[in-house]
Order: sequence, then structure tokens, then C-alpha cells
Amino acid sequence: MTPALQIVSATADHAEAVWTIFQEVIATGDAYVFDESTSREDFMAYWFSPKSHAHVAILDGEVLGSYIVKANQPGRGSHVANASYMTASAARGRGIAGKMCEHSLHLAKSLGFQAMQFNIVVATNTVAVKLWQKHGFRIVGTLPKAFHHAVSGVVDAHVMFRELDDIG
Amino acid sequence: MTPALQIVSATADHAEAVWTIFQEVIATGDAYVFDESTSREDFMAYWFSPKSHAHVAILDGEVLGSYIVKANQPGRGSHVANASYMTASAARGRGIAGKMCEHSLHLAKSLGFQAMQFNIVVATNTVAVKLWQKHGFRIVGTLPKAFHHAVSGVVDAHVMFRELDDIG
Repeated sequence: MTPALQIVSATADHAEAVWTIFQEVIATGDAYVFDESTSREDFMAYWFSPKSHAHVAILDGEVLGSYIVKANQPGRGSHVANASYMTASAARGRGIAGKMCEHSLHLAKSLGFQAMQFNIVVATNTVAVKLWQKHGFRIVGTLPKAFHHAVSGVVDAHVMFRELDDIG
Repeated sequence: MTPALQIVSATADHAEAVWTIFQEVIATGDAYVFDESTSREDFMAYWFSPKSHAHVAILDGEVLGSYIVKANQPGRGSHVANASYMTASAARGRGIAGKMCEHSLHLAKSLGFQAMQFNIVVATNTVAVKLWQKHGFRIVGTLPKAFHHAVSGVVDAHVMFRELDDIG
């Protein structure tokens, strides 16, 4: 029997694995705004903030991915969630990001959010754009040259958005 | 001779006046994401952050407005600036926001930013939308019901953007 992917709240026990995945994710410089200058301290304060609802995806005891859900804006914009996802490089192409996305949509709904917004989805990262579209997000705007891609230089980035009305 | 509006870097001496303006601005609940639950401590940490480049607009010794310029994203998105502006309620309609906007565009350019983005311009705040358009910003996307307006309930908000190529 194949063990199932489990998605659970992140704890201090997962911090080292999440930091390792973060370093893998930013090393390519093609998808995430954080760059190599990000200190472990700054990353940890951001990802494991009490406001961030960090989760991890675990398969057979190994942390293969992590995501956070938080309010995208304070106060009068706080009914719209924001989320970020990271998958370990060795675990790519196995549907883990999609499963984390589904989990995060239900979490956001249960937390009372009415919509979810991604602020800077790199336009050249077509795998991600298509994945988020598959999960109900649409491009509501494109920011010209807003992302400094490690290989391609400045490239466009999308703002993506979805309501949570259809989430159970 | 009419005294001219001066726009200078904010210091601790301006903090009380800026806090007063902030409270006026958020009281109407129609333009700013911050709401009345924002503590003085949180606001001060945000507005006077070393990363925020806070400025004040002063006329005849009185602080009539304040703005900040900062990076809109970390790392690979940090070449795009973000700015926020506030005008004292008694000083509205005198072109102060426009002058602060022009000043902020030059400041952003001098700091090395390549563009400026506003993340959540309330769509019903047509005076602001038109003002930013006059200063070269365009609507690159609209976020459905992303702002909880104190009177109208949830209303749309725009993402606005402009390059800084034409700024001297």
C-alpha cells in the first residue's frame, strides 16, 4: 500500500526541513521573490509567523513541501487571503503543489477568508500559472517586468485571484 | 507672498502630526486598508521603518501630509517601488497629494527603482484613481470585492502601475 501524503500544521520540528526546501526553491531564481540574501532568521520569522498558518506536506515521514496562508492586506483588505507554496526539488512533478493548493483553499475558507490572491506569479513559470488556473485562479492583471528572473532578466508577473464561494 | 509647500524627510519630530493624519485618514474607512484597530505602535513601526523612506509635506510650519516609498516586494521584486500617501482632512483639495506623488516618483527613481505599484486602490475612490492616472499610473488589474468599505461594503480595488523611465 502506497503511503498517502499528509498535510498538517507545521511545528518547530519541521523548521529545518522547510528551511532546506526554501533554499532549494530560491536557488533557481525563476519563481520566488526571495533571493539568496534572505537570512534564515528573516525567512523563519516570515514563514512561521503566528499570522501565517504554515503547513507541511509529509510523505512517509519526509517533509516534501510547505505552504502558508495569511491575510494579503491588513484591516479592510484582510478578508482576502494570500498563500505561498514550496515543493522540495526531488519531489517535483508529483502533484504535491496542487494538493497543497487544494488544502490551502479549504483552510482559507475555514478561517473565514472570502477570496485568495497571489501577488506575483512569474509569467515565464507557465507550469505554475497553469496549475493555479486549474485550481480556479484567474489572471486579473499583469505587472510589466516586475520580477527579476535569474536567467531571463526582468520578466512580467501576474496577479492571480479566485473567490472561495465554491469551496466546501 | 504665499509660503510654498515643502516636502522633506520625516523625523521623530513629525511623528505626532503624522499619527494624527493617519487617524483622520482611516476614520472614513473608504480609502485605506488600515482600520481603527491599528495600534499607534504598529503604524509607527510601518510608516517610520528604515525601509520606508517617510516624507512629510509642510506648509507654514504645519504638517499637512505624509508619504512613504518602499520596495513592493523583497529580492527579485525589489526593483518595483510601492508608495502610500495621506493628507490631513483640513488640507484636502489643495493638490497636496499630487505634489507628494510627484516628489515620491523622483525619490523612487533616485533610489534606483524602475517602476511603482499601488496594490489596493479603492475603485469607488474615483478622485484618487483619477489623480494617480494623471500622474502616469494605469490600472493593470482589478481585484473583485477586495476592499471592505465602511459604507458600501465590499468593493473592487485596482492594482495601479507605472514605469519610471520618464522621471528625470
